[in-house]
Amino acid sequence: MCELLAMSANVPTDIVFSFTGLAQRGGVTGPHVDGWGITFYEGKGNRTFKDARPSSESHIAQLIKSYPIKSEVVVSHIRQANRGCVSLENTHPFTRELWGQYWTYAHNGQLSDYEKKFVSTRFNAVGDTDSEMAFCWIMDKVVEKFGDKAPDDRLAVYRYISTLADEIRALGVFNMILSDGEHLMSYCSNNLCYITRRAPFGKAKLIDTDVVIDFDKETTPNDVVTVIATRPLTNNEQWNVLTPGEWKLFKKGELVSSSVS
Amino acid sequence: MCELLAMSANVPTDIVFSFTGLAQRGGVTGPHVDGWGITFYEGKGNRTFKDARPSSESHIAQLIKSYPIKSEVVVSHIRQANRGCVSLENTHPFTRELWGQYWTYAHNGQLSDYEKKFVSTRFNAVGDTDSEMAFCWIMDKVVEKFGDKAPDDRLAVYRYISTLADEIRALGVFNMILSDGEHLMSYCSNNLCYITRRAPFGKAKLIDTDVVIDFDKETTPNDVVTVIATRPLTNNEQWNVLTPGEWKLFKKGELVSSSVS
Repeated sequence: MCELLAMSANVPTDIVFSFTGLAQRGGVTGPHVDGWGITFYEGKGNRTFKDARPSSESHIAQLIKSYPIKSEVVVSHIRQANRGCVSLENTHPFTRELWGQYWTYAHNGQLSDYEKKFVSTRFNAVGDTDSEMAFCWIMDKVVEKFGDKAPDDRLAVYRYISTLADEIRALGVFNMILSDGEHLMSYCSNNLCYITRRAPFGKAKLIDTDVVIDFDKETTPNDVVTVIATRPLTNNEQWNVLTPGEWKLFKKGELVSSSVS
Repeated sequence: MCELLAMSANVPTDIVFSFTGLAQRGGVTGPHVDGWGITFYEGKGNRTFKDARPSSESHIAQLIKSYPIKSEVVVSHIRQANRGCVSLENTHPFTRELWGQYWTYAHNGQLSDYEKKFVSTRFNAVGDTDSEMAFCWIMDKVVEKFGDKAPDDRLAVYRYISTLADEIRALGVFNMILSDGEHLMSYCSNNLCYITRRAPFGKAKLIDTDVVIDFDKETTPNDVVTVIATRPLTNNEQWNVLTPGEWKLFKKGELVSSSVS
């Protein structure tokens, strides 16, 4: 299994605090030592930092913890390999371009009997993980349904993706983070939770390492920041736990759509 | 204009020496202050470090200079903006996936009257540079000609790409680096040169900063390393200068194909 971390915010926000907690799970408080990656969107562009080495001892993870990159959307993942060897091409997040936007994806879980299902033509996996094959299959299906030009109704695209995620969940565990740089989707199979922070901001204390932050000193009153994680990263705040099959779509930190329960 | 740097090697090799020279041109010995990027292939996977800030004062460029990443193929670029604003989405190199491989591209030059030509459907530019539009058009044309599955004859693909590059060169200046992670193509419009280093290795001295390296101490006798750059990076070695319209294809450091002159 792996750990996911993602953020959607209405102002460029750094994720150093949350990433510091997550990185500990890559070899210190958690067993996820088979690489890690983090994608930051800045406008339409993005940049991904990846390493096949454990996040707790990676030079590049150290940079991310010490050099705040401000971003409105972040997708991050630390890996404990189950399908596919430990290598850079198997390290999440994965990115593909569609409709002139970069789509970034990370998966926590494990699937079975997926080879026959995940047949894709336009988007192809570079590595050999079930995760990347699932992503390419989703992207192929989206193009098949909506075509080469972006439809006006983006929510319809995400609703369709949720039905594809339902199909994938039938093959095993499928917790997913997906973003087009503007929207951030979280799909829960068994472990995913989120918190939306807004004024009045308070203090938060990481579970995985002895760090406390006072968000009131780091934010302005209009900031809205949603953080999604496999398991809560702080122990003095109330996280919302998603149920199996539930999904949430965020934009600029706010919830804009979700599964009908 | 911008500066290009690329490497093809038969063993994972770090590019710290050459990048140190290139990074100086991003604000110290050269005017290329509008961002920089570098892509390292490690096996089939790759990772790109990008920054919209000048390379000479970038924290991330500092990491690249101090933390050797060993790679068989590298593509790098420092930018002086002409088309498109200074932003992350306009920062080279650009990457797209085709045939289960990551294709990475960087361009030096400037094009005119390109909007009508660079119409693409499958691959679309995320930013607004002539460079990225040219890349997407090339990738679209390649799929149009060779289809959704990788052809056995990869050299035929690069020969075809050279004819597309000829067409683009008719619109202005088009020095290009392109790689599928295995091959590295350099196409010259007016400024591109390369050097292939192999045993017996000697000392090299950077032009842009006071650094000397003794490759004999850094290599093994079987190493073959080709470095491509806009202008020579060292002043005590013989660089091969490409002529307008000339192209070279390298694999594992060796020249495997080139334009017929």
